[in-house]
Amino acid sequence: MDLLKEKILSEGHVREGNILKVDRFLNHQLDIRLLNELGKEFHRRFSHLPVDKILTAEVSGIAIAAIAAQYFQVPVVFAKKLESKNLDPDTYEGEVYSYTKGKTYKIRVSKQYLSPGENILVLDDFLANGEAMKGLIEIIQGAKAHFIGAGVVIEKGFQNGGRELRDQGHLVESLVIIDSLENNEITFR
Amino acid sequence: MDLLKEKILSEGHVREGNILKVDRFLNHQLDIRLLNELGKEFHRRFSHLPVDKILTAEVSGIAIAAIAAQYFQVPVVFAKKLESKNLDPDTYEGEVYSYTKGKTYKIRVSKQYLSPGENILVLDDFLANGEAMKGLIEIIQGAKAHFIGAGVVIEKGFQNGGRELRDQGHLVESLVIIDSLENNEITFR
Repeated sequence: MDLLKEKILSEGHVREGNILKVDRFLNHQLDIRLLNELGKEFHRRFSHLPVDKILTAEVSGIAIAAIAAQYFQVPVVFAKKLESKNLDPDTYEGEVYSYTKGKTYKIRVSKQYLSPGENILVLDDFLANGEAMKGLIEIIQGAKAHFIGAGVVIEKGFQNGGRELRDQGHLVESLVIIDSLENNEITFR
Repeated sequence: MDLLKEKILSEGHVREGNILKVDRFLNHQLDIRLLNELGKEFHRRFSHLPVDKILTAEVSGIAIAAIAAQYFQVPVVFAKKLESKNLDPDTYEGEVYSYTKGKTYKIRVSKQYLSPGENILVLDDFLANGEAMKGLIEIIQGAKAHFIGAGVVIEKGFQNGGRELRDQGHLVESLVIIDSLENNEITFR
């Protein structure tokens, strides 16, 4: 997706530890016109599949999923990371290992908002080691819903998440795949 | 806004402690068609004002702000609550007192994404005591930008936030105002 590549090259920044900062348009400030184009592209790539609901994880997946959902005309559910008094106690849970924090945390979706047999598309901003994605798939499986595929804005192709998911037979559509961030240089596949 | 009132009556739940749960369409599952109507309504109410940017706070303001921003054709910035290695150290900060948690926490926006003189519209899901709104206004003032008004989906009119802001001369547009949640009954103004 050329528009996205250009945006990443012009406004993204590489930081130590293979971190790509896209705060200027995707993670802190949101370029809504760009998000619309990403949403259209996700719809184009998944329009051959039945999608009943889009699942994402707070925080940075929410805007992407909400904008994209307009093209699918389905609701969004976002998994919660934070403990909250307001969250129903009755939830589907997934475990996510965080490499940056060196520990495992839980993400949760109220059992009210996922139902057996529903076709669930997962959308998220990044796919690296796939830890967040595994947690989301665990939630979908817990609900006996169908995980029909994952759409991610940026896949770090030099980490294992995307390959593992595809090896397991899952459909993964990444709008861009980055093969290297070495020497502060962004190399697209 | 009748559509929103009907949604609150049919899918909202009142919980002890004057809590209105709107998880089914606004806070956990997102009814994207409804969010579109809310976005259009915010635009109608603020279209006489210059808006350069929409500011909100993570988590529950993000989807509302992102969908609404399409009608304003401006970027969104969301203030971060969570400590994150990825956030710039150079931020504007606001303090938010949480009644549920009984303590004060900080919200932050990178100095890169708010500039002096910019006209900032704040959008959020709830306005109750106005603590989150005060933190966001503190951030706007720190940036020497202009706080031109606040749009909230649901104002709890029996708490002080909305009245205090209006008494200070601020423009506050609430799509619905709830005057009471007593006896598990929702009374709109």
